[in-house]
Amino acid sequence: MSESAVPVFEMHPYLWGNPATPGELPAAAEELLTALGATAPPAAVDPVDATLPDVTLSPGVVDALASVVGTEHVRSDHEARVRHTGGFSTPDLLKLRAGDGSDAPDAVVYPGTHDEVVAVLGVCSENNVAVVPFSGGTSVVGGLTAARAGFAGVVALDPRRMDAVLGIDEVSRTAVLQPGLRGSRAEALLNEAGYTLGHFPQSYEAATIGGYAAARSAGQSSAGYGRFDEMVESLTLATPLGSLTLGTAPKSGAGPDLRQLILGSEGAFGVITSVTVKIHPKPTSRVFEGWRFPDFAAGAAAMRALVQDGPLPTVLRLSDEAETGVNLADPTAAGSGGSGGCLMITGYEGTPAETAQMQVEVTALLDGLGAESLGEEPGEKWRTGRYRGPYLRDQLFEVGGLVETLETATFWSNVDNLKSAVTTALMESLGSNTMVLCHISHVYEAGASLYFTVLTTADADPITQWGKAKHAANAAIRASGATITHHHGVGTDHRETFAQEIGPLGVDILRAVKASLDPNGIMNPGILVAGAPA
Amino acid sequence: MSESAVPVFEMHPYLWGNPATPGELPAAAEELLTALGATAPPAAVDPVDATLPDVTLSPGVVDALASVVGTEHVRSDHEARVRHTGGFSTPDLLKLRAGDGSDAPDAVVYPGTHDEVVAVLGVCSENNVAVVPFSGGTSVVGGLTAARAGFAGVVALDPRRMDAVLGIDEVSRTAVLQPGLRGSRAEALLNEAGYTLGHFPQSYEAATIGGYAAARSAGQSSAGYGRFDEMVESLTLATPLGSLTLGTAPKSGAGPDLRQLILGSEGAFGVITSVTVKIHPKPTSRVFEGWRFPDFAAGAAAMRALVQDGPLPTVLRLSDEAETGVNLADPTAAGSGGSGGCLMITGYEGTPAETAQMQVEVTALLDGLGAESLGEEPGEKWRTGRYRGPYLRDQLFEVGGLVETLETATFWSNVDNLKSAVTTALMESLGSNTMVLCHISHVYEAGASLYFTVLTTADADPITQWGKAKHAANAAIRASGATITHHHGVGTDHRETFAQEIGPLGVDILRAVKASLDPNGIMNPGILVAGAPA
Repeated sequence: MSESAVPVFEMHPYLWGNPATPGELPAAAEELLTALGATAPPAAVDPVDATLPDVTLSPGVVDALASVVGTEHVRSDHEARVRHTGGFSTPDLLKLRAGDGSDAPDAVVYPGTHDEVVAVLGVCSENNVAVVPFSGGTSVVGGLTAARAGFAGVVALDPRRMDAVLGIDEVSRTAVLQPGLRGSRAEALLNEAGYTLGHFPQSYEAATIGGYAAARSAGQSSAGYGRFDEMVESLTLATPLGSLTLGTAPKSGAGPDLRQLILGSEGAFGVITSVTVKIHPKPTSRVFEGWRFPDFAAGAAAMRALVQDGPLPTVLRLSDEAETGVNLADPTAAGSGGSGGCLMITGYEGTPAETAQMQVEVTALLDGLGAESLGEEPGEKWRTGRYRGPYLRDQLFEVGGLVETLETATFWSNVDNLKSAVTTALMESLGSNTMVLCHISHVYEAGASLYFTVLTTADADPITQWGKAKHAANAAIRASGATITHHHGVGTDHRETFAQEIGPLGVDILRAVKASLDPNGIMNPGILVAGAPA
Repeated sequence: MSESAVPVFEMHPYLWGNPATPGELPAAAEELLTALGATAPPAAVDPVDATLPDVTLSPGVVDALASVVGTEHVRSDHEARVRHTGGFSTPDLLKLRAGDGSDAPDAVVYPGTHDEVVAVLGVCSENNVAVVPFSGGTSVVGGLTAARAGFAGVVALDPRRMDAVLGIDEVSRTAVLQPGLRGSRAEALLNEAGYTLGHFPQSYEAATIGGYAAARSAGQSSAGYGRFDEMVESLTLATPLGSLTLGTAPKSGAGPDLRQLILGSEGAFGVITSVTVKIHPKPTSRVFEGWRFPDFAAGAAAMRALVQDGPLPTVLRLSDEAETGVNLADPTAAGSGGSGGCLMITGYEGTPAETAQMQVEVTALLDGLGAESLGEEPGEKWRTGRYRGPYLRDQLFEVGGLVETLETATFWSNVDNLKSAVTTALMESLGSNTMVLCHISHVYEAGASLYFTVLTTADADPITQWGKAKHAANAAIRASGATITHHHGVGTDHRETFAQEIGPLGVDILRAVKASLDPNGIMNPGILVAGAPA
């Protein structure tokens, strides 16, 4: 894909993805939902009619921000504000669809350089103005909603002007990327230079490099290219107190790895203004295949064999029986009857010789583990549809569905227990007209992620309905000893469970770090840790 | 190796390794040193005659500690104290050889459980007693010397009673290890169960799991099995304020990876009391080979090709021309004329089929990159001698030599610049009767470590002599943009340069974390960060 072929678009405030290619709900999916008893909800409010809070930011602060970034790069019009209102969690969407824009910032600031970011944060810290770093806007965990209470105002900091590949080191195989660069554009620019980043999360079309770093993103090719936090060699953070630059070597024994403290900090410590990432030669061959396993246990055992003893494909994904049954891996056919058993997708990238050898070795292994080869057609369907799943949520809302995803990770010996506990918690909370689908899409030697898709019929108060179900799922994850999120992040939705996961001393550490970099607590307040810094 | 075959020994306070197998200085090495003008120094003082500071710990504190761990597990006799005096940096050794035991603790405490460690730290924190976590005692960076000033006393906390493999999860391929377990014993116990940890640093015979974790150790098979910080899935930390348990999944998106904040904390935040680590099936085949490259640049380029595009051996090591010239990779022949060019060692571990295939692929690649195969003999010599190098330092001291090692890491595009800068700094500081040898022993897609061995003749004040050279090397590393240590750690010797490397905000973060876990600043004071916590 040449860079010019990368679609340039601005996301609708509550409709996922590229507006030029909206989701198309397969008839089977709509029929399935009707069979569950769904009825169409009230029509969604147009964003131009959303009710936004009064602007509390003083003109003096607006002037000070404008003096840093230029008047044209501070906006407080309705459109700019509503486009920076929350993210894409189901509660975020339901609020805005109902016309509730109470999470809107007072203004949006668009800095153009690292130094401008530092200066903006300085102005906001001096004036007790909360700052929400808002880049791709694709958070699904309430990560873009600053707690407004106690602040003189809320500013969204949008780094979209910082969207360059600053340099490529062909010897070290690294590239320096700016935070406002969309993943899809970064990939296109690197492709033109003969490289790939290899990071393909479902948010690929819209999310940005800064967001990937701040939220420890993991893409669909994580088996082959690693998670985003494993790709980052160096980074620069702008904080209210100045700059922090980390990463003098790929690995170091010089104290704790502070890079891993900033990655995943979700804007609560500062704004990541550049990252140096690993790059790889652009693959000249890509092969994706489908396999059918008799059941989830057999498929999971095969995945474990692949990751523990090799060969390890670039992409590995296993749908459980329920997800296979509704064909979720192929959004164009979602809702239609699947073929039974469990669908696994394997993908190989590299030179033609490498992918051919991988295909032979994987086939030999999976044949011996009870898999039936389905050929390349299901693999290609998954590959071409792999960013389309989230588009369907908006269509499902329109016909009275309530759909959301959540994900976790654990060690292999705990996978069955975790899957069962989360499924039970969701079914018990939402009732029998509910489907809980699950897949594994990220594997490690010691464990794997579990990704759940929940589909039910919306009741009269779907925000509360989902809130209860989410609370039950969070509790089941914690009780199972697993992590509250494998790659979606903490935000506000997981904050309470996250605090239980890391314990009181873990929370104290995060508060202490935040206080040392952001003494007035203006950075994305309420995200990651609750309340004001110590 | 069965566990019963693991040598049980206690290290001499200033002679490296197993006392039953002391180093034997090859005649060629002694001749080389004599040619440089070395003259024998004064005889070393026997440790029983070392001068230790008066014990300042009050009887009340000793009683309180005894009430936690039992009277028999608190020792303040001369032998226990002198065995816990500093580590194995050249300055540490020179001090103790001169009879200067001023770094001795007042007492040594041997807790047997995590809860006892927490209670010991509580007693010490209440009573303003500094605690030096002292496990294998092999620090080469001054990591075991607490700043005594301002404290009511100094206690060494030795976890040797906590030396079990607590469990093996064969499905997740993990094992839970206690901190006082020596690396060699851990490996033997895992071998008996059919597994390997794959961690073989030069300190393997004596250093412990807790030390590996606290200092981000990297072993000689890091290309195949990863660094120790990459092996750790979960850990428990005992702090003066209680316990911190981290690691609910192999990878998580739940905020920063706090595991990576504790790994490398060098006892300054608390005591690591258990780790859950990845394990691997014990290899049934091991092959080590030697290769000759015409020069370092050609060898380094070949290493880079192996790590960036594969195949990646389990062990990869490249000596530069100078190190090859004195045969340092074979301690039994060190000092003898090498064969010219640069020696590379490659090692492959796995099943016989895997190592055979790896050998074919590596041979094909290296043949095309200018390597001459030397067969398996140099590989086996390196493998069998690989823990013996440090033994020679003691023998070299005896004949008037001054020898020390230091190491760093950087990105591939900076390797030549860094190597040249450090070599020049050392030569300029130490003068012409000096040899600076270098090898690469850890490789990453984006860069590599550089390990320097410095040999010169000791002058009348070798501590000052080496101090100046070390300062010059540190400055050269920092000016080159590299990290001050790839795997030896920060300790006191690298603290100042480390502070420059992470910058003032980085230091503030570490101080804030320390203050949140260790508010009275008793944990290994002076290590990692200077002075009292904020």
